[in-house]
Amino acid sequence: MSIKLETRFLEGFISDAEMASMKEKTVAAAEKLNSNVQDKSQPVGWVTLPENYDKDEFARIKAAAKRIREMCDVFVVIGIGGSYLGARAAIEFVKGENHNLLSGNDPMILFAGNSIDSDSLYETVELCRGKRVAINVISKSGTTTEPAIAFRVFRELLEKEYGKEGSKERIFVTTDARIRPGTLKEFAEIEGYETFVVPDDIGGRYSVLSAVGLLPIAVAGCDIDAMMAGAQKARKEFDNTDYETNSVMRYAAIRNILHAKGKDMEVFGAFVPDLRFTGEWLKQLFAESEGKENKGIFPGSVIYSTDLHSVGQYVQEGKRIIFQTVITLGAPRHTISIPHDEANIDGIGYIEGKSLHYVNDKAFLGSMAAHRDGGIPNVILEMPCADEENFGYMVYFFEKACAVSGYILGINPFDQPGVEAYKTNMFRLLGKPGYEA
Amino acid sequence: MSIKLETRFLEGFISDAEMASMKEKTVAAAEKLNSNVQDKSQPVGWVTLPENYDKDEFARIKAAAKRIREMCDVFVVIGIGGSYLGARAAIEFVKGENHNLLSGNDPMILFAGNSIDSDSLYETVELCRGKRVAINVISKSGTTTEPAIAFRVFRELLEKEYGKEGSKERIFVTTDARIRPGTLKEFAEIEGYETFVVPDDIGGRYSVLSAVGLLPIAVAGCDIDAMMAGAQKARKEFDNTDYETNSVMRYAAIRNILHAKGKDMEVFGAFVPDLRFTGEWLKQLFAESEGKENKGIFPGSVIYSTDLHSVGQYVQEGKRIIFQTVITLGAPRHTISIPHDEANIDGIGYIEGKSLHYVNDKAFLGSMAAHRDGGIPNVILEMPCADEENFGYMVYFFEKACAVSGYILGINPFDQPGVEAYKTNMFRLLGKPGYEA
Repeated sequence: MSIKLETRFLEGFISDAEMASMKEKTVAAAEKLNSNVQDKSQPVGWVTLPENYDKDEFARIKAAAKRIREMCDVFVVIGIGGSYLGARAAIEFVKGENHNLLSGNDPMILFAGNSIDSDSLYETVELCRGKRVAINVISKSGTTTEPAIAFRVFRELLEKEYGKEGSKERIFVTTDARIRPGTLKEFAEIEGYETFVVPDDIGGRYSVLSAVGLLPIAVAGCDIDAMMAGAQKARKEFDNTDYETNSVMRYAAIRNILHAKGKDMEVFGAFVPDLRFTGEWLKQLFAESEGKENKGIFPGSVIYSTDLHSVGQYVQEGKRIIFQTVITLGAPRHTISIPHDEANIDGIGYIEGKSLHYVNDKAFLGSMAAHRDGGIPNVILEMPCADEENFGYMVYFFEKACAVSGYILGINPFDQPGVEAYKTNMFRLLGKPGYEA
Repeated sequence: MSIKLETRFLEGFISDAEMASMKEKTVAAAEKLNSNVQDKSQPVGWVTLPENYDKDEFARIKAAAKRIREMCDVFVVIGIGGSYLGARAAIEFVKGENHNLLSGNDPMILFAGNSIDSDSLYETVELCRGKRVAINVISKSGTTTEPAIAFRVFRELLEKEYGKEGSKERIFVTTDARIRPGTLKEFAEIEGYETFVVPDDIGGRYSVLSAVGLLPIAVAGCDIDAMMAGAQKARKEFDNTDYETNSVMRYAAIRNILHAKGKDMEVFGAFVPDLRFTGEWLKQLFAESEGKENKGIFPGSVIYSTDLHSVGQYVQEGKRIIFQTVITLGAPRHTISIPHDEANIDGIGYIEGKSLHYVNDKAFLGSMAAHRDGGIPNVILEMPCADEENFGYMVYFFEKACAVSGYILGINPFDQPGVEAYKTNMFRLLGKPGYEA
């Protein structure tokens, strides 16, 4: 597993002198992150997580996943933000976006509690009718509105179907470690649900390799040992401040150089639809980390070649405010070749017998060259394939790049103060006690 | 059906004087569109389509859809860009994003030929195994690489399963009307496939209410008569140049005023996940129409409240380069209420018994107020519900708004010259005859 930072489609946009001029700031940012790792009060537990994770809990996650896979047809994952996007990104990355339609012996993985939409929750309940169901509610506070609503609905459903006693073994709670009065953790202990930990020193968007992401990922049939091994490898490779060779630091530097030159938007791209939610995960990681103090690069995402016939037009010829970061995969899971057709009315006879992957690679190269020539800088991150190891590796790469990048930009990459604003208004409108004024 | 343009969350961003100053340009843009409607060589057939559509073909679409719904379990729609996004947006809007998991007696609708990804095509083929299959290839030229590859693969699959003769009734071709040597239309006539028309005077991204979108939409079980009735109503309502009352013109003016004030990005939002692909359709419509000559507003999309825990942070506090256009729905398809829970450890007891729709509406109001207060102008488009009539109405509203807006911006909203750039490079890399140099 690896990520190769390929800069040929950046040529002409960043000079060697500009890269050199960013060295001091980037090294300082990486050192700041390292020094925070020593300070246990800082939310940077994800930096050492690939080595320091709780091995006992990890074993419990694997055991619970095995039981869940045997006991249920549908596993409902209740969470929002980092308690939703990481697991979904991982499962679609490894198992494909059609995993629920093709699930075979794997349980369907459904996500709930990530919106307040009525039809969405109604349909998720419908999909559980007549099926054996288990659920995982993921919420540090236990009081976030979206998952709280879904947890009530699904707990009621389970208790109706299996009784209060029978539901106990079907409800899994990932929450704060401390047992305090009136908390979800205390409630889970009283009710007898198995619990896992949302770590104190890891923010939601950095938490996919904790129990937050790992339980659903393991239930989906992914190898979480391999995922952690990938993250460990990345941790080792990037645990230095060697600006000339460290791809995490170079990527962080490139982002800030381009931003300073007027590129206000980063479009994360891939040529594989299974990476759609990797894009969503990246958008949360970067938007919540950097989008504050009226600063930051706005993160978008595309799936090409689909979106070459959509926003691709803007990327090619629109306002020059964009750079792209494109993830490539060296090999697909399945190979399929272009069949022969005597008629050849489609004119693609010249690529008969070629694999789709071969053609897709040429679409990638062709569009990157076209975008570069149109004035769009492109960072390419080459990965061998979409498996568990590479997912773990990629997560670590982006988390560290995001943190270093945020320090260069001069903001705190670990808070998200703006997320409270809508909640406060909503609570007031709903008449929540304490918010009436 | 209707769209109400609600401007309360725009307050403080656009003055009456600014609105008035845009009148002349906006009226001129609307008049330019009208004058083009008289000129049959212009690609504005979509303007009068709600009245002038081919009634005989429309009846054939309904008859074919009825046959297809009886003869197959899986309907594979092969197309890219406008031959993909419109139908998918409509089906998810009306039937929900889980329609394939909940399909019941409806055939599954799968989309292929919208990327060159190997796993995606492989899995779509896998989903057809053991099922009764029919396909619809949608391509004006018949030579676009992505759908051409998928059509070869699925035609081979059908001919293996049903024989050459048996496949004829399972292959539906939507393409150019003219029978010319070596075209898909000629091929379809020779092979005996039923054909439908991609109109000459309607570009891909404006084509969802032609056979391009209507056949798959009808196969999915949507009422296409109601959809056209919705478009007709919008056609009548907005067929004037009364700047003071015409919401299409006001929206077009607002977009351009905000853009001139430094808002380079429009984020299309909804509080309903079923509108995810409405967002994708809007992104194609606006990006391809406006993103040229180094101009244009970059279109993004979000689903809230999900993304309030993601890019919402950036919207609230990031760089002030964004405005939002948010679609609301007055009612969901299904109502679900928040259950009672004695323990109330989640603290949401104060909204027990309330419908999710009620709470979602407060999340909408709360976030719009928060974003406005954070410096983000918000256009609100209020719709009654997500049914066929409203989809047709909405499509027409946005198509006309996009055209008028593009004329105000000073570009041609009907071409997409930048889409060719990647193709030319790709053909060269693939060694396509004529592109070797």
